[in-house]
Amino acid sequence: MSHPQIVKVPLEGRAYDIVIGAGLIARAGAEIAARRKGLRVAVVTDETVAGLHLQPLLASLGEAGIDASPLVLPAGEKTKRFEELIRVCDHILESRLERGDAVVALGGGVIGDLSGFAAGIVRRGMRFIQVPTSLLAQVDSSVGGKTGINTAHGKNLIGVFHQPDLVLADTDVLDTLSKREFRAGYAEMAKYGLIDKPDFFEWLERNWQAVFAGGPERAQAIAISCQAKADVVIADERESGARALLNLGHTFGHALEAATGYDSRRLVHGEGVAIGMVLAYEFSARMNLASPDDAHRVSRHLRAVGLPTRLSDIEGGLPTTDMLMDHIGQDKKVQRGALTFILTRGIGASFIADDVPPSEVFRFLEEKRAS
Amino acid sequence: MSHPQIVKVPLEGRAYDIVIGAGLIARAGAEIAARRKGLRVAVVTDETVAGLHLQPLLASLGEAGIDASPLVLPAGEKTKRFEELIRVCDHILESRLERGDAVVALGGGVIGDLSGFAAGIVRRGMRFIQVPTSLLAQVDSSVGGKTGINTAHGKNLIGVFHQPDLVLADTDVLDTLSKREFRAGYAEMAKYGLIDKPDFFEWLERNWQAVFAGGPERAQAIAISCQAKADVVIADERESGARALLNLGHTFGHALEAATGYDSRRLVHGEGVAIGMVLAYEFSARMNLASPDDAHRVSRHLRAVGLPTRLSDIEGGLPTTDMLMDHIGQDKKVQRGALTFILTRGIGASFIADDVPPSEVFRFLEEKRAS
Repeated sequence: MSHPQIVKVPLEGRAYDIVIGAGLIARAGAEIAARRKGLRVAVVTDETVAGLHLQPLLASLGEAGIDASPLVLPAGEKTKRFEELIRVCDHILESRLERGDAVVALGGGVIGDLSGFAAGIVRRGMRFIQVPTSLLAQVDSSVGGKTGINTAHGKNLIGVFHQPDLVLADTDVLDTLSKREFRAGYAEMAKYGLIDKPDFFEWLERNWQAVFAGGPERAQAIAISCQAKADVVIADERESGARALLNLGHTFGHALEAATGYDSRRLVHGEGVAIGMVLAYEFSARMNLASPDDAHRVSRHLRAVGLPTRLSDIEGGLPTTDMLMDHIGQDKKVQRGALTFILTRGIGASFIADDVPPSEVFRFLEEKRAS
Repeated sequence: MSHPQIVKVPLEGRAYDIVIGAGLIARAGAEIAARRKGLRVAVVTDETVAGLHLQPLLASLGEAGIDASPLVLPAGEKTKRFEELIRVCDHILESRLERGDAVVALGGGVIGDLSGFAAGIVRRGMRFIQVPTSLLAQVDSSVGGKTGINTAHGKNLIGVFHQPDLVLADTDVLDTLSKREFRAGYAEMAKYGLIDKPDFFEWLERNWQAVFAGGPERAQAIAISCQAKADVVIADERESGARALLNLGHTFGHALEAATGYDSRRLVHGEGVAIGMVLAYEFSARMNLASPDDAHRVSRHLRAVGLPTRLSDIEGGLPTTDMLMDHIGQDKKVQRGALTFILTRGIGASFIADDVPPSEVFRFLEEKRAS
């Protein structure tokens, strides 16, 4: 077994480790016990992940003498809602966990966001440990402390900032993902290059096949992504400024997810982000901020790995542009009147634009759906 | 109109004012507009308070040009639950408030705790303004940032720490309270004396009639109480240490509230705290930590103002001592095995005892209910 990589997130008073490597689920009990003595845990997972990874995790916790009570929820984005949040909270309280005990999220972003929210509100904040099993969760949602659920009004509109105590990213589990899921996580890795790491984007253009195949390039790309996210989070934990850069592709992406009813058969988060990033580059080009060549380069790479890049790549019809604008208007990143978007001046040169006229966005979307 | 008193809570990066005085609801719009420009608000209140104070508040906000959308909930402790939390969140989102906008809580502790929780989780944290209309809320729950709801497992087990941006305590509105409600708030004022302000407790013994009657003593006692609470909160915002002192009387009190099904006809929070404080002093005397004379003095004063001080003051039967212990065991302040109580060495000499044997508490409660 190769030595795991550790990315340290030095948040003041709440520093934590992201451990990245092969076979970590089988070592989870030891990794946790080495950092915290005598805690009990509730393990939250979904039906799909439970079948693959729950027993190995529970066995590992048991070996380390950690008392664990599991809760298995339905798989899918629809689980990120109030009813399931209440179930998780009840499970934690029924297990009589105390403030110093921990909630362990074993799963992808849905399980992480939901369990992290529960950990953030039961007893006004318990310990939280992430064991992300999707690439998306390993490089994005398990790092940074954002938790939340969806409502009829939009995605992630209810939640808290609650930092994990530990993240264990087992790179072996990614072999159980479908190609489509892996690609969706890849979109977020590419995002870090497009925000401010042009060299990383170029490296991905050359090495993406190796990242998909596994091996050292995969772990390296995950570690670079976690470090990139951690750097932004440390600088701006509560998204009052620079952290908004992480939303590159997300304002369009969230609107598309809402417009397709969060139906993962039609569009998953990473795919929405892929299309959203291409739209952000194209819109930047249209506003004469970036070259159309950069938009083409982004689109070409994402398409090469098999990601959707156009509105027309989404199967089934989209609602009217007015309704898309309504979803954009309800996005958390909105400031009254003008819209806030992450736009770009080129590959790795993204910036926060807080004065985007809604009329320009509307016209751009109308054209895009016609093309 | 006399000049209001202002208690400043200098939390780093989130400093806020507690304004205490007569006629503040009629001036709320101006007070808010003077501190924050251009924000919109959702006003959350209950049916009882709405009939008395909602129109004056809305008129005042309107005069200051603040757009406000009101939501009126049922009155009573049962409103502090998930279903009503979801209603408040939906109302905020339907009103399309943004992150910089505010939730205004117009009411007592129930409305404040519930709306503050909603403000803490919608868009992962919005601005929050408290307009407390009960004495309890003015001297306790509106200060310090604790928010939450109850579940079948106990009181306030789900919530977040979310500090207000402003607290407006209108001392005129206390004249609309019943004697019983005023007394319940008075218990929390007396608590500050019993924790670490023996002079204030003595002052209350001499001046309580004036506090009940209104006038300068009332505003003075409220300001001293808010300052006392603010001092503790600044020292320990997230209750990792000294803040636990504020729970004097609360571990017993919460168990009694749970045991009476949060039925306000039988017991309101402040009454539970009053009995709980007397029990804490009596238990301390029994453990040879304090003199029985101090317990008598506390009991005598609380009884003089008309508060309950004994288990037998609660109408209707109590559940078994085993069940009371179970409620104590589910209290947030529990550490595994040994129980944590706030005990005392005398008037104004309370301390955190984290090694209280459950068997001693059990025997003490058995005796008390027999007496």
